[in-house]
Amino acid sequence: MTTAPARRRGRPPAAAGEQTRERIVRAAVDLFAQKGFHGTGVAEIGDRADVQRGALYYHIGSKEELLFQILRDYTEVMYAEASEIVASAAGPVAQLRRLIRSHVRLIITHRREVAIQLRDVSALTGDRAADLQELRDRVQHCWQQVIDAGYAAGELRSADHVATNGILGMLNSVTLWYRPHGGRRPDEIADILAGTVLEGLVSTTYDTKG
Amino acid sequence: MTTAPARRRGRPPAAAGEQTRERIVRAAVDLFAQKGFHGTGVAEIGDRADVQRGALYYHIGSKEELLFQILRDYTEVMYAEASEIVASAAGPVAQLRRLIRSHVRLIITHRREVAIQLRDVSALTGDRAADLQELRDRVQHCWQQVIDAGYAAGELRSADHVATNGILGMLNSVTLWYRPHGGRRPDEIADILAGTVLEGLVSTTYDTKG
Repeated sequence: MTTAPARRRGRPPAAAGEQTRERIVRAAVDLFAQKGFHGTGVAEIGDRADVQRGALYYHIGSKEELLFQILRDYTEVMYAEASEIVASAAGPVAQLRRLIRSHVRLIITHRREVAIQLRDVSALTGDRAADLQELRDRVQHCWQQVIDAGYAAGELRSADHVATNGILGMLNSVTLWYRPHGGRRPDEIADILAGTVLEGLVSTTYDTKG
Repeated sequence: MTTAPARRRGRPPAAAGEQTRERIVRAAVDLFAQKGFHGTGVAEIGDRADVQRGALYYHIGSKEELLFQILRDYTEVMYAEASEIVASAAGPVAQLRRLIRSHVRLIITHRREVAIQLRDVSALTGDRAADLQELRDRVQHCWQQVIDAGYAAGELRSADHVATNGILGMLNSVTLWYRPHGGRRPDEIADILAGTVLEGLVSTTYDTKG
């Protein structure tokens, strides 16, 4: 126990800076999710993170940069998981099922960031808007690759981009109705949605032209 | 031509008021879609609609009331079409296909209102928030009724609310990627998405447990 203060004093500045940055990001996610990007003042973020205005600018730069980092960080996690699944040895349909599970889990874990994305992504401009869009395109490209492979192998009926957009829209919108104590676990939700888009809602015994 | 000014003077006040209100609503949809509810000032709405501030308050009451009317109006159209389909003699699967077509068409026609809904619905408070939610619940109830009937008739494999939420989320998110000159007509988009959720993406010849 006696070494704790010494360790704290001895912590390299980089790590302390990292903790301050994390505190600022957490405060900004809380406030942006609650009041919107435009409804949140820089001073409020500083107050909630317990950081002086000078230090706030030192660690983050601007409110728009903070928004960019929040949206980029979770999109990077999404991209990392999607690329890993695409690179795996599983077949396209199994990969698609894993993509859906991974995506639903991430969307639910980061539902406040997704809500901020839906509401305030248009506040990003210039390079930041372009960088985030490029990263989102890379995520979508992973999905399209798997769907194209499944279509080429005859395992999927279509590789239309409209279907890919539709599936991602379905999964992203989970954040709009998901309730943490709503009784459904993220993996159950993922399995029901995977069943809907992969096997379809219509019974196999029913003439689907009805 | 000489009667035009006389007709203009003779227009009944109710019709003139209706036109002014429509001009205000159109201006507000433009501005809210472009700059967000919180980023739009009442004065800007008046300027764009060419209406004095006093007349603006007379016709609308408040910025929040304006937002409410914009979101309620298109949701009422959605509810009217959905109830008509539910009341029709078609079977559940055919009704579901018609619901999807009607919804996609309305979402695309009212994509700016849907974008405003996604971003700014949380700006509604009290009775207005409750009223709009109640109307949205009635739309969703129409969908659930059809899906429940399809499940009871053995035509659908599931009537899980997660699937219903997922399908509506998929269709509502069309507004996030639809481009008017993107080469796909609303009915084509609706048919591809209907095929995805009704028949599923996986080929019938493929073992879906893969």
